[in-house]
Amino acid sequence: EEFPRMQTVTLIPGDGIGPEISSAVMKIFETAKAPIRWEERNVTAIKGPGGRWMIPPDAKESMDKSKIGLKGPLKTPIAAGHPSMNLLLRKTFDLYANVRPCISIEGYKTPYTDVNLVTIRENTEGEYSGIEHVIVDGVVQSIKLITEDASRRIAEYAFEYARNNQRNSVTAVHKANIMRMSDGLFLRKCREVAENYKDIKFTEMYLDTVCLNMVQDPTQFDVLVMPNLYGDILSDLCAGLIGGLGVTPSGNIGANGVAIFESVHGTAPDIAGLDLANPTALLLSAVMMLRHMGLHDYGNKIQTACFDTIRDKKVLTKDLGGNSKCSEFTADICRRIQDLD
Amino acid sequence: EEFPRMQTVTLIPGDGIGPEISSAVMKIFETAKAPIRWEERNVTAIKGPGGRWMIPPDAKESMDKSKIGLKGPLKTPIAAGHPSMNLLLRKTFDLYANVRPCISIEGYKTPYTDVNLVTIRENTEGEYSGIEHVIVDGVVQSIKLITEDASRRIAEYAFEYARNNQRNSVTAVHKANIMRMSDGLFLRKCREVAENYKDIKFTEMYLDTVCLNMVQDPTQFDVLVMPNLYGDILSDLCAGLIGGLGVTPSGNIGANGVAIFESVHGTAPDIAGLDLANPTALLLSAVMMLRHMGLHDYGNKIQTACFDTIRDKKVLTKDLGGNSKCSEFTADICRRIQDLD
Ligand SMILES: CC(C)[C@H](C(=O)O)[C@@H](O)C(=O)O
Ligand SMILES: CC(C)[C@H](C(=O)O)[C@@H](O)C(=O)O
Repeated sequence: EEFPRMQTVTLIPGDGIGPEISSAVMKIFETAKAPIRWEERNVTAIKGPGGRWMIPPDAKESMDKSKIGLKGPLKTPIAAGHPSMNLLLRKTFDLYANVRPCISIEGYKTPYTDVNLVTIRENTEGEYSGIEHVIVDGVVQSIKLITEDASRRIAEYAFEYARNNQRNSVTAVHKANIMRMSDGLFLRKCREVAENYKDIKFTEMYLDTVCLNMVQDPTQFDVLVMPNLYGDILSDLCAGLIGGLGVTPSGNIGANGVAIFESVHGTAPDIAGLDLANPTALLLSAVMMLRHMGLHDYGNKIQTACFDTIRDKKVLTKDLGGNSKCSEFTADICRRIQDLD
Repeated sequence: EEFPRMQTVTLIPGDGIGPEISSAVMKIFETAKAPIRWEERNVTAIKGPGGRWMIPPDAKESMDKSKIGLKGPLKTPIAAGHPSMNLLLRKTFDLYANVRPCISIEGYKTPYTDVNLVTIRENTEGEYSGIEHVIVDGVVQSIKLITEDASRRIAEYAFEYARNNQRNSVTAVHKANIMRMSDGLFLRKCREVAENYKDIKFTEMYLDTVCLNMVQDPTQFDVLVMPNLYGDILSDLCAGLIGGLGVTPSGNIGANGVAIFESVHGTAPDIAGLDLANPTALLLSAVMMLRHMGLHDYGNKIQTACFDTIRDKKVLTKDLGGNSKCSEFTADICRRIQDLD
């Protein structure tokens, strides 16, 4: 191997168990000699000029330079009018595609085997427009906004993803039988884009039908692309099939290589600081990040070590069915990485 | 037993396999001596005065008198602007609550056992408002409409249902973290109504979290209540857990006892007329109907016979894993009903 150029990544450790699992990931990366320099930043929302919520300037600057972030869980702010930090990050960096590979983990038993699919969620509009009104007392409307541009962009992302990841089919998930204009527009753009990817099979399916088929036989699905809310639902459902948010990686992708990879589980305040947390979701998100940066070998090595530790079942955190501490689980992965060298 | 008063039910056999499975249900009802007089009606949508789509007057009149309908699958009309007949029926009779009990069927194997929950879906508004606009070229909005009245009404229905069916808890399913005003209103009404049902435990949960938890452990849920689209999704997901739409009953409930019970699977045109269809979903919907009419003994007898046939595994239709015809499956259920007497 050549001596690789160091690249900077903005690390947002997050709240609760965030710092512990971030340390675990850094330790594993160091052991794997991954050529990453971490720039740690906190992202508590602050009120900017005009009273608008924004992420702190030093975090924004770091991300603007590094273009790549790795993020632990952030606690949901309780102040009224305070936005979700996760949403604010997606918005600030126009991270329009949320990508979640859901792949069965050998040795980690769930009712399903051989799940191997990817949900690709439009991340910027739809039901998340934030536009709502009271029409008259007791009558409220929320607006779902679908645009041609965002629909085409996410469809193109999905097909490119399929092609670049040796996947065979893309399914557009929709309710165009009910929301004929909005989901209709989304679906039309998917169909148009599909025309340019004759090597990838294109199908369309109602969201309710997908949910039903998904729990009956998830192996029939490959890449799924969908509007914002449907992706919120389906990505969590699919995570459940392979073992939950503790083992599911996630990436938020923007234009020009900008991306933030994150574990999507909670901050688990009850076990924070006790060395009991499971770093797998953040670690696998970091593996996605390495691949996104073209550092496939490092990614593969770390992933292999992590899956070996899980398959071996000897050193597992509590949520994975074991008795080990976060640090022991981490050490076992590190040991395997050294053995792989 | 007293000699029971005959009650009229409007039977809408539907399309495809609808007539066959309706005949099966009628035969089973006759064998069970259920005191039901069927009034058969077709419901192809017709264009009324002013060009508005409506259901045929003779079907409407029958329902207006009988108040109770049993409905097979209806094919989705293909003519542009033609509404879904299912939606038109819900609208015409203001069937505001869609109720789907999802209970594991002994002997019919799925990845889950001991599922025993009920989804209660608001059936009249939300994302199904049908209000959509093009804002400018390439920008479309759909309006989700939530009202205080409809939210209170469905919440009250859910709690009454829980109380009358010996169920312990009601979970409100929402995304009020995103749709703060609309789902917020829905959730507020659920909370208010919960105050009047101190005997029923009330919880609230995000839709994505429900989906994730549902596929990991559905036994944690009891009664779930939610806005229209979430119910569309979740009711299909839950049907998948117990074996799919072929075995899941459904009821659409309105005010003053008006109700239509229906199988929610498709018309299966490929096997229509071949005596291969599975009548279970329509039969179990008809059992729900009997209970709704206070005819519990008849309902229980028929349900027992149906579940016995399935558990026994000797006479099953193809989709249930057997080789028998619809008529043989039906005859086996009838035989058991006679044995029960
Ligand atoms: C935290 C919350 C706002 C978010 C969402 O609803 O999108 C979460 O569920 C997710 O999927 O990242
Ligand atoms: C047929 C269709 C319009 C309907 C819906 O979306 O509500 C169906 O999925 C259902 O659940 O009854």
